[in-house]
Amino acid sequence: MSHSTEHEPKSVYTAALLVIGNEILSGRTEDKNINWIAKKLVEKGITFSEVRIVPDVAERIVAAVRDMSARYDYLFTTGGIGPTHDDITAGCVSQAFAVPMEENQQARAMLVAHYGGEEHLNPPRLKMAQIPVGAALIPNPVSGAPGFVIENVHVMAGVPRIMQAMLDHVLPALAGGAVVISRTITSRLAESRIAEGLAEIQNRWPNVEIGSYPHFQAGNFGVSLVLRSTDQEALAKAEADVQALVIRLEAAGV
Amino acid sequence: MSHSTEHEPKSVYTAALLVIGNEILSGRTEDKNINWIAKKLVEKGITFSEVRIVPDVAERIVAAVRDMSARYDYLFTTGGIGPTHDDITAGCVSQAFAVPMEENQQARAMLVAHYGGEEHLNPPRLKMAQIPVGAALIPNPVSGAPGFVIENVHVMAGVPRIMQAMLDHVLPALAGGAVVISRTITSRLAESRIAEGLAEIQNRWPNVEIGSYPHFQAGNFGVSLVLRSTDQEALAKAEADVQALVIRLEAAGV
Repeated sequence: MSHSTEHEPKSVYTAALLVIGNEILSGRTEDKNINWIAKKLVEKGITFSEVRIVPDVAERIVAAVRDMSARYDYLFTTGGIGPTHDDITAGCVSQAFAVPMEENQQARAMLVAHYGGEEHLNPPRLKMAQIPVGAALIPNPVSGAPGFVIENVHVMAGVPRIMQAMLDHVLPALAGGAVVISRTITSRLAESRIAEGLAEIQNRWPNVEIGSYPHFQAGNFGVSLVLRSTDQEALAKAEADVQALVIRLEAAGV
Repeated sequence: MSHSTEHEPKSVYTAALLVIGNEILSGRTEDKNINWIAKKLVEKGITFSEVRIVPDVAERIVAAVRDMSARYDYLFTTGGIGPTHDDITAGCVSQAFAVPMEENQQARAMLVAHYGGEEHLNPPRLKMAQIPVGAALIPNPVSGAPGFVIENVHVMAGVPRIMQAMLDHVLPALAGGAVVISRTITSRLAESRIAEGLAEIQNRWPNVEIGSYPHFQAGNFGVSLVLRSTDQEALAKAEADVQALVIRLEAAGV
C-alpha cells in the first residue's frame, strides 16, 4: 500500500473510487460524481482504474476499502459521512485499517463553527466528529461534516457540490504522473469498416490507447475514434495515421 | 452460482453490473446505463447489489466476471461487443467460464440480415458472430451485433439505446422476488435534527430500509427521507412514524 504523503517518483499513479450508497443502487439518485472525478484525475495525470458501487452495508464497505486501497495508489470514497443512522463510512474505514475512532477536536471545532456554538452539538452532530485516529481532515464548506484522509483513502461526501470542494482540497497534495493527452476523430464510417485498419494502427503505436465509440442517432450512425497517450509524438503520428485511414475509407464511400 | 433458467423459488434475487469501458474511466463518456438498469431491476423485484467499472483489459474483465457471477444471481455486463480491437468482452466471458468460442450460426444470420448479404461479412463483422459455445443470443435491433447469455451472465452493448432494448429482451425471463415499494418524505429540517428520531424508527421497523439524503441549494438545505420495503404494512406504519416525527420537529422550528 502506498501513502499519499510518502511516495517515490514513478510514471503511473492509479486511483479507484468506492461509491457508497443505497440510493444509487435503488435508482433513486443518478450518480454525478464518477464522471467529475474521472475528468479531474485525467488533468492530474492519475489513471482512474476502477469504480465500485456498494450498498450501505458495513461488511461490504470494509471489504471494498481493504481490497481497493491495497490495489491502487489512491482510493476515494463518496457518501455516508453525515449524521444519520445510514452514514457508516467513517466507522467502516476505521475497521478496514483496524484503527480506533476518536472525537477529533479539529472536527469538533469545525462543527461548532458551522452550527454556531457548542450548545448546538447534539449527539448526531457530534457523531460527525468521530474520525479514525491519525486521519487528516478535509474541510466541508457546505454542511460542516468534514471528510478525512487515512493511509491512501480519501473519504468524501456524496452530495456533488461538497464532493467537488473536497476533491479540489485534496488533489493538489497528490502525486500524478505524465498527463494523458487525447485526440478525437469523428466519422460517419461504420465501425466494422474501419476496424481492421484501426487494429493495425493500434499495433503500430502500442503506447497510444485507441478506442472506437459508435453512435446511432435518428437513423444515422457514426463513430468517434479516441486516441490517448502521454507520448505526444506517438500520439501525433497515430492521429495522422487514423486521419489518413478515415479519409481513404470515406473516399470509397461511407 | 445460479442459472437464470434453473432457479428454485426464493424471496430475494440479486444482480450486479460490470461496466466495461476505458471511455467511462477516462471521463470522455458519462455512464447512462447504471441508473436505467437500477430502475428496471427495482420494477422486477431484483436487488441491485453491486456495480464495478473496469477498463478494456482482459485480465481485469475475466477476474470481475468470475467474481461477480459467483456472488450474485445475475450479472449484467455493458460494453465491448462491437467489431473493433478494443471490443474484447465476448472472449473474456468465454475465458471466465473456460468455454470455447465458436462462430454462432444464428449470430451470423443476424449479421447477414443487418448488413444486407453474405458478401458484406468482412472479418470485423464476422468477429461479432464469435460467441461462447452454448450461449443464448440477445438480439440487437440497432446495430446487428448480438449480446448473449451464458450461465448467469447477460452480455449487453454499451450504447444506451441498444443496452435498453437488450435489457427489455432478457428481463421477462428472469425470476424476481417481492417488489420493493418506496415512499419519500421531504422536509426543510436539517438531517442532524432528525437523525435521532429517525434511528429510533429504523430500529422499530428493521425490514424497512430508511435512507436520509440531504440537499443544499441556493443557501437552503433540506432532506429527503426515503423508506423502502417489500412489506407494505410495515412501510405504511414506518411512513406514519416518520411523518409524525417531521411534523413534531417542524412545529419546533426548522
